[in-house]
Amino acid sequence: MTQVTQTPQIAILGAGLIGVGWAALFVHHGADVRVWDPKPEALKEVEARMRAPLAQLEEASPRTATRGTLTLCSDLSDALSEADLIQENAPENIPLKHALYSLVEPLMMDSAVLASSTSALTWSDLSPGLKDPSKLITAHPFNPPHLVPLVEIFGTDLARLGRAEAIYRAAERVPVRLMKDATGHIANRLASALWREAVHMVQAGIADVEAIDAALVNGPGLRWSVLGAHMAYHLGGGEGGMAGYLAHLGPSQERRWASLGNPTLSEEVQTELVAGVEREAAGRSIAELEAVRDKALISALRARKEAPHV
Amino acid sequence: MTQVTQTPQIAILGAGLIGVGWAALFVHHGADVRVWDPKPEALKEVEARMRAPLAQLEEASPRTATRGTLTLCSDLSDALSEADLIQENAPENIPLKHALYSLVEPLMMDSAVLASSTSALTWSDLSPGLKDPSKLITAHPFNPPHLVPLVEIFGTDLARLGRAEAIYRAAERVPVRLMKDATGHIANRLASALWREAVHMVQAGIADVEAIDAALVNGPGLRWSVLGAHMAYHLGGGEGGMAGYLAHLGPSQERRWASLGNPTLSEEVQTELVAGVEREAAGRSIAELEAVRDKALISALRARKEAPHV
Repeated sequence: MTQVTQTPQIAILGAGLIGVGWAALFVHHGADVRVWDPKPEALKEVEARMRAPLAQLEEASPRTATRGTLTLCSDLSDALSEADLIQENAPENIPLKHALYSLVEPLMMDSAVLASSTSALTWSDLSPGLKDPSKLITAHPFNPPHLVPLVEIFGTDLARLGRAEAIYRAAERVPVRLMKDATGHIANRLASALWREAVHMVQAGIADVEAIDAALVNGPGLRWSVLGAHMAYHLGGGEGGMAGYLAHLGPSQERRWASLGNPTLSEEVQTELVAGVEREAAGRSIAELEAVRDKALISALRARKEAPHV
Repeated sequence: MTQVTQTPQIAILGAGLIGVGWAALFVHHGADVRVWDPKPEALKEVEARMRAPLAQLEEASPRTATRGTLTLCSDLSDALSEADLIQENAPENIPLKHALYSLVEPLMMDSAVLASSTSALTWSDLSPGLKDPSKLITAHPFNPPHLVPLVEIFGTDLARLGRAEAIYRAAERVPVRLMKDATGHIANRLASALWREAVHMVQAGIADVEAIDAALVNGPGLRWSVLGAHMAYHLGGGEGGMAGYLAHLGPSQERRWASLGNPTLSEEVQTELVAGVEREAAGRSIAELEAVRDKALISALRARKEAPHV
């Protein structure tokens, strides 16, 4: 495992929600961070918008060393010239990202990693934007990026992947490497598969939106916060583990798969989804719900430090 | 909401893993519990086997009142005569459960609820075993039942459902009601849908078993422990909430659904699943992994008391 020995130099490209989350995370963990955005007015607000995530980070994982530095750069070359990791958070638009990469590539160090936070696009979509595609990796954080540890990684240059992962680990992230480029990486494919069945149950009248969310949060969601899905079946197999589970219950799992639904987002189901989350929100605004979520995430992260997950 | 005003009297039928978990839970929360098992030798071990779950419950949620009582019954009528709730944990076998119900029904109080812990079977499978099917509900706990709060409920008699739910709530469970009987209830349908895509990613070579588990536990699993799947899309829609999400990203979610896989549990994929969880277990036995899981669950439950989930 590559170790980070010097203070890492990080460039954050794009000062939206995700970019600001990354900036706060790296500053909290002692890195020297330079933020660039094509709109100078966006830069002016960065420090103010980092205050809340920095306070949350301090609660989730109190600093043992001093904070890193923050530099706001209106000039792209200032942000890139010494950066070890360049975290790109531009809008999800292939031509726009390609155009940005054509500016970035000549300015970055040979050893640097250009990491795209892209959620919807893939490495194969983005790498044609560079002369040397091996400089690019995808490094997808899970929202909110300063609190949820996962970073999903794909790239082709093993040494560069190793250097990037070491930087993410030093910021208490958990980098997880894909073996093959895939739309939705890993986590959003899992989330999408789960939500398909959740929407199917609403459509089929099996349970309402708020019952499904309550079942998830108090059942499998809670368990998946400490135990992976494969590992859960390993433990579900008793003494025989996964092999025992597959021998005894594999066929019934295949039958269950066949019985899962394939819903469409019809107008009727959309109306019910909107009404359901409104009942669940019980008058709380998006900002209020996010505040509850973040407080609960911080508490869960602290709990993990006391008792590590499987 | 029906309130529990007197000490509830609980009968536990079947002293296997699930039955003992229920017994410990109800005793911890002050109920008077009578355990019956067709095998007298199983009864002898109940007290010893309750020690570990009772200690875990004390850690997860320290008692504020005295423990309830435990009575071991070799005679079924002793267990049932004053029971408000009869929690049945017999093997997943329809004729066997029907035969048991034909013994139980004449011995239970008119007001009592017969609640089946069944995971694989449904209310429609089981209710023909009673003269009065309205006495039966399904009440499926999520393993381990004394730690994971979810209890999935289905039945037809609203008054009985209300009385059962009040008893579960008094034992700090979260009862979630289905509107329609469904195989796998809610939670195992969600788990099955998620695992199908997890197995697909292994089969397609996108990621290995341990990477998928790490992505889940450090990403969506952690978030689903504080926020439901529907609510996550509500927050993902920004100011527009779920309606905004559906308007902007509904079509791409439908495309994502179409791209999810439909794996089979071939010999090849089974071999990889077994090898993957073994790499992930890194030499730890099932019992050791369960101990890590339980410690992490207890820590997560304590964290929830400090900061409630959405």
